[in-house]
Amino acid sequence: MVIDLQKVILNLKQNNNIAILAHKNPDGDTIGSSFALMYALSSMGKRSRVLCNDEYPKDLIFAVGVYSEEDFEPEYSEEDFEPEYVVSVDISDSQLLGSDIFNKYANKVDMAIDHHRTHKSFAKEEYIQPTAAATAEIIYEIILSLGVKITKEIANCIYLGISTDTGCFKYSNVTKHTFYVAGELVEAGADTAKINKRIFDTKSRKQVEVESIIANSIKYYFDDKCAVVQIPVDFLETHGATEDDMCNVTNIPRQIDGVEISVVIKEKEDGVCKASVRCDETINAALICQTFGGGGHYAAAGCVIPGNLDTAEKMLIDAIEKRLKEINVI
Amino acid sequence: MVIDLQKVILNLKQNNNIAILAHKNPDGDTIGSSFALMYALSSMGKRSRVLCNDEYPKDLIFAVGVYSEEDFEPEYSEEDFEPEYVVSVDISDSQLLGSDIFNKYANKVDMAIDHHRTHKSFAKEEYIQPTAAATAEIIYEIILSLGVKITKEIANCIYLGISTDTGCFKYSNVTKHTFYVAGELVEAGADTAKINKRIFDTKSRKQVEVESIIANSIKYYFDDKCAVVQIPVDFLETHGATEDDMCNVTNIPRQIDGVEISVVIKEKEDGVCKASVRCDETINAALICQTFGGGGHYAAAGCVIPGNLDTAEKMLIDAIEKRLKEINVI
Repeated sequence: MVIDLQKVILNLKQNNNIAILAHKNPDGDTIGSSFALMYALSSMGKRSRVLCNDEYPKDLIFAVGVYSEEDFEPEYSEEDFEPEYVVSVDISDSQLLGSDIFNKYANKVDMAIDHHRTHKSFAKEEYIQPTAAATAEIIYEIILSLGVKITKEIANCIYLGISTDTGCFKYSNVTKHTFYVAGELVEAGADTAKINKRIFDTKSRKQVEVESIIANSIKYYFDDKCAVVQIPVDFLETHGATEDDMCNVTNIPRQIDGVEISVVIKEKEDGVCKASVRCDETINAALICQTFGGGGHYAAAGCVIPGNLDTAEKMLIDAIEKRLKEINVI
Repeated sequence: MVIDLQKVILNLKQNNNIAILAHKNPDGDTIGSSFALMYALSSMGKRSRVLCNDEYPKDLIFAVGVYSEEDFEPEYSEEDFEPEYVVSVDISDSQLLGSDIFNKYANKVDMAIDHHRTHKSFAKEEYIQPTAAATAEIIYEIILSLGVKITKEIANCIYLGISTDTGCFKYSNVTKHTFYVAGELVEAGADTAKINKRIFDTKSRKQVEVESIIANSIKYYFDDKCAVVQIPVDFLETHGATEDDMCNVTNIPRQIDGVEISVVIKEKEDGVCKASVRCDETINAALICQTFGGGGHYAAAGCVIPGNLDTAEKMLIDAIEKRLKEINVI
């Protein structure tokens, strides 16, 4: 059932021992939103815990003032916490709870707070605001309406959510209201520059190394309108890198001036390749990926192609060529 | 003489044929501020021209709605424009006018509008607001006070200034007011995402290529606290690159996790090297560069060292080692 802000406030005021669910592979928005809500509930004298299927990335968790597993629970142990009310935050689909949390909570979510336009109902009650750039922007309004002061700690959490979901205010989802909230967070003492430096301007030595290797291997097609990167299955092992070092890989071909279609093809263990396709306004990435049974959005889509890297690249380039001819780009 | 906003408005209202001076090697703030003011004056029925010693970088000028030299002057030719009043915008020192503009206007600047704390007086009247993240933030207030509507065109100019001077809202100079103005610009129709993509997320193919070469050549010292990059004198020629492709070079060693001192050493034609040193909070870059007669700020400084690249690197590393020992970092 769709509810309004007033009902959200009532739900939070009337309950205690509140489990706050963050989504699997947690990003800055789900982490920032969850911890902001936890801190707010805590300042109201309520007990709550943030629960997440996966580990929090170190580069994100520092911003919410939590530095180790122990910090998550300063006053009571996990055994001592029996959720009486369950809120999901920034989760658009119950599948995104992750298997452990899904098995335990999928049918017990009392309230979903989310900003995804594509939200698939799974909670008893839901408060979805698709014009918000981040769920953290919604959480900010909720905390204000709860009558809780935006402390520096809460401001950092909300800032983390907003800055990561907007690429530090770069994307088109940023509204006047997003900037307004960001201004209030600065006033509340958020460590904006520190958070930005760590998240947007810091790479590991290894990340810089693998990115330069990948940048050197870009292949171009169709008058340089299309840029393709191949990632062999043993790439991480060969270079002693981790998945974290690869977080920016899709942006490497995409950022190049004049490139309208960027493709990253990753070889998988089982003789297939996984491709991600990003396109500029005029080209539909989902249509290209549908050729191989994949799909996604207009600007970003993906698919799985059987065969090795070169086979997959050849098949994708053929599909892209067909599409570019259909829309008279070549 | 220091003047207040009211006097700024009076000056602009009382005068016509206004020359707006942008600084040499123009950046987004001087360009955005100048053109915003020009558009505002134009909507008041006044004639004005933006004058700059150097060419406008293409990546910046598109944002202010000016695409070619002819566009600068839609209604009257240069010969037909005789300045009666001269305003400098974002210029902290008359030396930054550039030689051509300096020779013509250095003693004739009626009013300086600027946000640099280090502003050295050169105009008859000056309006300096050091808490503004960008001069464009000041220009926004001026245009509002002139009673001029913030059109989409003006909003784009001001957004260009603010976004470039704050690294797209990443730096510590961003205040609550900066975010407030940005929100108003969104409402006025600024093409924020388009401008951001072009300025912050687009690199030329050649830039990606040379950056990956440079990233692969980083040398580390003092437990990886210090990262050094060398740029040989023939680097651009060897790789067929331009100065524009090198705009991000200082960030390459600087962005690496754990690096507290980043050094870029450029070999020059005349047997000397030019070094730029960037440091984290605890280390004074200016002190290091003073060893070689250079100087600058706490966080960013520069110097010239005679000799080839390896000699210069050795001398700099010695100076850095001495400094790190003095402050007990090593």
